[in-house]
Amino acid sequence: MEVELKEMLNDLESLKRSLADPSHHAPIDKLQFRVERLTSLAKSGPVRRSKVKDMSAEVVDSNPYSRLMALQRMGIVGNYERIRDFSVAIVGVGGVGSVAAEMLTRCGIGRLLLYDYDKVELANMNRLFFRPEQSGMTKTDAAVQTLSDINPDVILESYTLNITTVQGFDTFMSSLKNKSFRPNKEGTGIDLVLSCVDNYEARMAVNQACNELNQTWMESGVSEDAVSGHIQLLIPGETACFACAPPLVVASGVDERTLKREGVCAASLPTTMGVVAGLLVQNTLKYLLNFGNVSPYLGYNSLKDFFPTMEMKPNPQCSNFACLERQKEYLLVKPARDAAIKAKMEAEASSVPESPLHLDNEWEISVVDDTEPESAEAKTSDALPEGLVRELPSADEFQKPPTEATEGTIDDLEDLRKQLEALNS
Amino acid sequence: MEVELKEMLNDLESLKRSLADPSHHAPIDKLQFRVERLTSLAKSGPVRRSKVKDMSAEVVDSNPYSRLMALQRMGIVGNYERIRDFSVAIVGVGGVGSVAAEMLTRCGIGRLLLYDYDKVELANMNRLFFRPEQSGMTKTDAAVQTLSDINPDVILESYTLNITTVQGFDTFMSSLKNKSFRPNKEGTGIDLVLSCVDNYEARMAVNQACNELNQTWMESGVSEDAVSGHIQLLIPGETACFACAPPLVVASGVDERTLKREGVCAASLPTTMGVVAGLLVQNTLKYLLNFGNVSPYLGYNSLKDFFPTMEMKPNPQCSNFACLERQKEYLLVKPARDAAIKAKMEAEASSVPESPLHLDNEWEISVVDDTEPESAEAKTSDALPEGLVRELPSADEFQKPPTEATEGTIDDLEDLRKQLEALNS
Repeated sequence: MEVELKEMLNDLESLKRSLADPSHHAPIDKLQFRVERLTSLAKSGPVRRSKVKDMSAEVVDSNPYSRLMALQRMGIVGNYERIRDFSVAIVGVGGVGSVAAEMLTRCGIGRLLLYDYDKVELANMNRLFFRPEQSGMTKTDAAVQTLSDINPDVILESYTLNITTVQGFDTFMSSLKNKSFRPNKEGTGIDLVLSCVDNYEARMAVNQACNELNQTWMESGVSEDAVSGHIQLLIPGETACFACAPPLVVASGVDERTLKREGVCAASLPTTMGVVAGLLVQNTLKYLLNFGNVSPYLGYNSLKDFFPTMEMKPNPQCSNFACLERQKEYLLVKPARDAAIKAKMEAEASSVPESPLHLDNEWEISVVDDTEPESAEAKTSDALPEGLVRELPSADEFQKPPTEATEGTIDDLEDLRKQLEALNS
Repeated sequence: MEVELKEMLNDLESLKRSLADPSHHAPIDKLQFRVERLTSLAKSGPVRRSKVKDMSAEVVDSNPYSRLMALQRMGIVGNYERIRDFSVAIVGVGGVGSVAAEMLTRCGIGRLLLYDYDKVELANMNRLFFRPEQSGMTKTDAAVQTLSDINPDVILESYTLNITTVQGFDTFMSSLKNKSFRPNKEGTGIDLVLSCVDNYEARMAVNQACNELNQTWMESGVSEDAVSGHIQLLIPGETACFACAPPLVVASGVDERTLKREGVCAASLPTTMGVVAGLLVQNTLKYLLNFGNVSPYLGYNSLKDFFPTMEMKPNPQCSNFACLERQKEYLLVKPARDAAIKAKMEAEASSVPESPLHLDNEWEISVVDDTEPESAEAKTSDALPEGLVRELPSADEFQKPPTEATEGTIDDLEDLRKQLEALNS
């Protein structure tokens, strides 16, 4: 529009010059004035907030970070402003990923990398974030448009690609390795990868990349019937990887891989996806800013408001080669790491006097019972906590040659293997 | 801008007529063409989706309800389209209320009533929903702007008022009583009230209105340190009302009424508020559409990912007169109601054969352990479940005249009473 208006000004100027009679100049001057006013109107557009150099804790209405910096004053977070140093990669910008991206953007994360190959459709409007007028845009473009308006301080990188293709996977890998944002960072250029995809193949691709790069990541998922979901922390070599065992799902859910079956439309709800995104980003903040306990696995059964937790150790017979490499490395460094943690804890226990979190307590409120809920112990694959089931028989069973299986189970295993191959093809 | 452009067209037309020499007409025609093109550009604006008459389950990209109607096919909800009959009132359009409103709007709720007196500020940008360019607008106006773009099918009513003032409370009451949306509905014109306010006085106002109108409502809250929250279902006469007992908060939180202390800025996070809004609206959907179990009380301790639950019975010595009236009514109808429920359950158990939720099970997945987690029993005020504390000593203690208290406790109680009075003034 601005270009059009400038051309109009030029046209009016030449018209004026071509008219010898000065009595005709007045209406043209008036027109020029109108065009100039329209130009300034068009330029102003929607008000965008300017970038903020330093995060301030000042309590004024115009400070977008006052309520976040207050986390420091409350003793929850040691140094909130560190959030600007972190890079988070979000794979899948759908019902969970888009909300996770918005939450991190509003928290003032340093840098966000977004990956998706899909376009926004009206059929996505039953989940948060995307708006009807963005229909037809790629999800990455629409997300960058919205997020940069919300917080211009965040560096946004968007990748419109499918990570399950060879080329997409290569670009994904090199984007994770790029360290130009913080050249002195150890490991990759990313602090955490969040998997917010809706299918098994994409999760396996994220798993492969993170195992190869020794990159900690969090996985998330929502069931096909929209009423349950989960998040999971994966540290290569230290916890189970996505290939170590069949994925755990909350008991009320059904097999997520049916989601992509022909003619079948999965249900979804903004509530379940919002809760899963919230739990995912809350654990991301706890992990990055070092407060609270990061959950190794947290399920959400919305029909019963039940939240099962557990831990999963890596499988020494995992089919993923990179996982086995990371397991070997972890076992080598574990004794030294455990000793260092123990020494640090002992030093802290002896030097810091026990002080309450909140110094002023004018209401004389005392916490009656704040013992930690029964901690989830690492369990073997056969003993799952209440409310959790495996999506498939354990990975081990797929490894066994059919001859080892008893007569009665061969058909079932063969059948499952064929179905799995069909899904992966 | 459209008015400006129309005036320009008129000016160009009169200029053309004033020029006798036709050789001057061509440049003016060109200018007129430019202005017309700009007019159509300005008119197009952002694309809004048109209203949808009936909710369709058709699986096409252009259907905004396909993923919601799929809940029916999956056997989760009996009749999803009933959602269009319901009216929900949201009191407080802040970090929780705005997200709750967006979720219900995207779910296609029939009618939403929004109440808030506050304006959008940049300091709100660390929570979801509001955008920087809405700074200075009232929260109700900004919400209506965003929500009507997202889903034009929802009837939105906004009330820019403070429900703790006499006039505001009167308008609040009459808006809840208005039955023009569904004249044959029993009781009030509202199916559920959601309290998403950030202070004690406003909660007490919602409590008063709902007790007087015998209106079921849900309360929500987030702690001042931003890391815990809760939701609670309140059915007048049947469950504890907000005045029956001091409010329950999740143990890691601090007294929420310190929130409004001078010079103190509460912390807030989009994650905690998003989770609380998600849990609140999920329970709203379960309540309205009759699926799953509606939680009587659900806490969220984000540092430990711990979710305490409990039930609270009404206090026969409650200080709220309307609550006592509702309790009396409930006790009168309870025997008949219990008998009807029992008869219905027995009839269902004998007539409906036990059938699995999902008829096809090609993966032969069986649910290993899906027993309901230990159900929260109604407890007395002294026995709270793990992780929950009361905000204040029980209401009973406030009722006792000081003479009944022992010498040593008079000062404490008097002190508390004074502080409470100061807060309420």
